[in-house]
Amino acid sequence: MARLNKKAIKVLQGKNFAFLATLNPDGSPQVTPVWADTDGKNLLVNTAAGRVKERNMARDPRVAVSIIDMKNPYYMVSVDGVVRASLKGKKADDHIDSLSFRFTGQKKYQGRRTPDEQRVIFVIEPTKVREQ
Amino acid sequence: MARLNKKAIKVLQGKNFAFLATLNPDGSPQVTPVWADTDGKNLLVNTAAGRVKERNMARDPRVAVSIIDMKNPYYMVSVDGVVRASLKGKKADDHIDSLSFRFTGQKKYQGRRTPDEQRVIFVIEPTKVREQ
Repeated sequence: MARLNKKAIKVLQGKNFAFLATLNPDGSPQVTPVWADTDGKNLLVNTAAGRVKERNMARDPRVAVSIIDMKNPYYMVSVDGVVRASLKGKKADDHIDSLSFRFTGQKKYQGRRTPDEQRVIFVIEPTKVREQ
Repeated sequence: MARLNKKAIKVLQGKNFAFLATLNPDGSPQVTPVWADTDGKNLLVNTAAGRVKERNMARDPRVAVSIIDMKNPYYMVSVDGVVRASLKGKKADDHIDSLSFRFTGQKKYQGRRTPDEQRVIFVIEPTKVREQ
């Protein structure tokens, strides 16, 4: 396991986007922005069940993430990682609400498109961390 | 070939970062920020010969790119694409200088680390474009 330093943790816990690369079924890469988060050791990505990145991570746990500090776009953290766990239910719902509050000021996440949308937290263990 | 619309072209020709995902030799994804650019049809990525993303694109042309508008981070363009050409020499040197001017105000790119650094432009044909 590679370690996130204090500055990387601060950026990951700030109002910043993380660009998450996953692998499609044919092995080609996919990349999308997600709200950045970390528990101090792992990256936490909250998405909805059924989305491309969710299906990709469920099938192949290898991911890469790049995060820039929106206040200083020349500070960058790149993380190679492996999905170690996925959490659904209340934990994932509470987590997306806390991210919604951080990013939008709204205590309840408004982005749900369907009433039966299931949120999922992917816990990503860093295997390599680079700062630039 | 998928088409970039006017708004996507504007964001790609603005002072924005593109997050480029490539494939490592073992098939795992790699992602790094690059200065965004387009000729109106293709994405243009300027990097240095020998870097990880350069070796990755030379080996496997499949890439994915995600770009957000720094002025409006909730406008996002994602592009799946294929590397169709790579250009070295004066074209690539002039191109990095023009990007340097756009992004930093400096007419000569200052980022060269070694005097013998070779710049390369990768011409990426979009195969799928999504806006969000």
